[in-house]
Amino acid sequence: MAERLMRRLAELATLSDMPGGLTRLFLSAPHKQAVEKVGAWMREAGLSTHVDAIGNLVGRKGEGKALLIGSHIDTVRDAGWYDGNFGVLAAIEAVQAAGELPYAVEILAFGDEEGVRFPQTLSGSRAVAGSFDAAALAGRDADGVSMGEALLAFGGDPGGIAAVARRPEDVLGYVELHIEQGPVLEAEDLAVGVVTAINGASRFAVVVTGDAGHAGTVPMVMRRDALAAAAEMVVAVEAVGRAHGDLVATVGSLAVHPGAPNSVPGRVNFSIDVRAPVDEARYQAVLAMAAALERIAESRNVDLSLTQTHDAPAVACAPRLQARLADAVASCGLPVRYLPSGAGHDAMAVADLCDVGMLFVRCEGGVSHTPEESITMADAQVAVDVLVGFLLNFAVQN
Amino acid sequence: MAERLMRRLAELATLSDMPGGLTRLFLSAPHKQAVEKVGAWMREAGLSTHVDAIGNLVGRKGEGKALLIGSHIDTVRDAGWYDGNFGVLAAIEAVQAAGELPYAVEILAFGDEEGVRFPQTLSGSRAVAGSFDAAALAGRDADGVSMGEALLAFGGDPGGIAAVARRPEDVLGYVELHIEQGPVLEAEDLAVGVVTAINGASRFAVVVTGDAGHAGTVPMVMRRDALAAAAEMVVAVEAVGRAHGDLVATVGSLAVHPGAPNSVPGRVNFSIDVRAPVDEARYQAVLAMAAALERIAESRNVDLSLTQTHDAPAVACAPRLQARLADAVASCGLPVRYLPSGAGHDAMAVADLCDVGMLFVRCEGGVSHTPEESITMADAQVAVDVLVGFLLNFAVQN
Repeated sequence: MAERLMRRLAELATLSDMPGGLTRLFLSAPHKQAVEKVGAWMREAGLSTHVDAIGNLVGRKGEGKALLIGSHIDTVRDAGWYDGNFGVLAAIEAVQAAGELPYAVEILAFGDEEGVRFPQTLSGSRAVAGSFDAAALAGRDADGVSMGEALLAFGGDPGGIAAVARRPEDVLGYVELHIEQGPVLEAEDLAVGVVTAINGASRFAVVVTGDAGHAGTVPMVMRRDALAAAAEMVVAVEAVGRAHGDLVATVGSLAVHPGAPNSVPGRVNFSIDVRAPVDEARYQAVLAMAAALERIAESRNVDLSLTQTHDAPAVACAPRLQARLADAVASCGLPVRYLPSGAGHDAMAVADLCDVGMLFVRCEGGVSHTPEESITMADAQVAVDVLVGFLLNFAVQN
Repeated sequence: MAERLMRRLAELATLSDMPGGLTRLFLSAPHKQAVEKVGAWMREAGLSTHVDAIGNLVGRKGEGKALLIGSHIDTVRDAGWYDGNFGVLAAIEAVQAAGELPYAVEILAFGDEEGVRFPQTLSGSRAVAGSFDAAALAGRDADGVSMGEALLAFGGDPGGIAAVARRPEDVLGYVELHIEQGPVLEAEDLAVGVVTAINGASRFAVVVTGDAGHAGTVPMVMRRDALAAAAEMVVAVEAVGRAHGDLVATVGSLAVHPGAPNSVPGRVNFSIDVRAPVDEARYQAVLAMAAALERIAESRNVDLSLTQTHDAPAVACAPRLQARLADAVASCGLPVRYLPSGAGHDAMAVADLCDVGMLFVRCEGGVSHTPEESITMADAQVAVDVLVGFLLNFAVQN
């Protein structure tokens, strides 16, 4: 089973806009080919398929209220084979292996989780959740093509997107398998983990302004060195991040002006990214950081500007789905590890519609969004086994 | 006197390769025009002039051993009016005002202090000092023209450069007036200062390597964040700089890889620039910095590479010339402020030939190498007065 799954992942990775690598953007020709190929595998597994108005591939089996299982088949540029694609193909294997179920199942292969081609992200899952904003259809790619135009060329129907939205009373919940994209499971020698929440995130753009000057001629006591101040701030951001359990805080980009070895830096721009499974903890951490940055700016007599550029609340995975996934993990004889998701997923959008649950699969080195992305066949088998166990138990315990 | 000096500085600034601004590179057409114009002013002041084999303009008055007074008439791109040019034109005013002197005087208008056009710097003063390396003639500008070719086109004589070198027994010493290019005199409300030394400088290229990762998914405790480590190092470099009197230490450039807000930084490259009037203090500071950086790298489990890219010893100004300049400052009724030079000057090269002394003039905001460079007419007058006093006293006290 896992052998076929891994073979299919390799085959799917050949549908690409990039020679020698994998790039499959939303509504591209490779996306269309992927919809056809994955649709064929769905039908082989006993599902009936259709492509909805926004380009999501939907495979259904059974009547009435449906359990949704999904992930995405678009990728970043020069991507790995597993991000998104694994969740879709593993779901096909699991549904096929589970056989007849006393409830309907739908597998959703969303078309736009990554948001690489157009300004919008999570387009497919938002449409299903009923939160897709039609204004996004006007967003354009690097070639000037709008999402609406690309959707028409793909065979989609911009006017029909609103009707893609499901009604809460028609669904039983949503589960998603995904590679962890982090190092926790590998470090603890675990194949899978149960996701507790998709972390909320705050992002800030920080500008520190001092005085540029000649590195040779301005005495230390007369300096207002923007980089020395920013460096203290970077250390402070990290300290706040370390002080709060599941929280992470990162300064990922930092630029120095004028940026010459013989110039005292006059201005530094940097980013802060804070994520946590609990919003209150994140807000407290952000307040602590802002206070620390202001203290540093004041003590060094530099100007500080802190602008929030992003604020997304955490999405909790439903306790009942966490419990069912944990039962399935335990039934496979494995320890249950709960962990938050630091990355965003389609489940975030689907949470507007119904309860969501996620299972993470270990990936090598925790890396994703690169060709080095890797999972083992044994772990793929465990993930499918857990999902099969979940499906078999879902009816009686739901 | 200062009025004419300021007017001439404005006039000289029109000889430029840049519309609406001042750019006068070594051996360019504006350089040739500047040699002609400044030469005419020298002759008007009673000096006989010639252009030497490397393009320096030399004005001489008197017979026998000569006191050299110099600075440069090349500029950086989009330069100010005063860097270099002020020292040359102020010397003309002072020699003219001093009248007959019982020793010879030579005013040197060096052609290449900035080193902007060719890889070499200080070409003119090195030729005079006998330390010009003929290999530099092969260095090319951005258009592919070699210094040797440009020199021939200018009317110079590559084969005659060796003969430009003076013999120590023919010179009495070298003095240079220059704008401070730093904020010390302005902060202390002083027009001029006596330079103690041209600081020695060490430069290092530092590479900190950790592990790149997803800013959302790698827990704080599992990170090897190259930027957080580098930030601690920047603060440590500054602390060592602050701990040593006249020493300055600067991290002026810093680059983060991959440098995205949602990526934990895997590698950071940064520069360290350390300058001090006393070499031993500089070496001690460099050792203290290296030790601090290694401690930080070890405690954070990141890799550290520290490569020296530059090491220039300090050049002390001769105590006898410092004393004579200080006497002249005091004779003008002004307090004597001694200060080191953080920037390089022609005097650095001439020190290979003879004793050197320098007088700094206050410049607005301490800025240089920009069109905002500014000095007041009153300060220009003080500088000329001090140089006149120095010239008048030089014979009896030398």
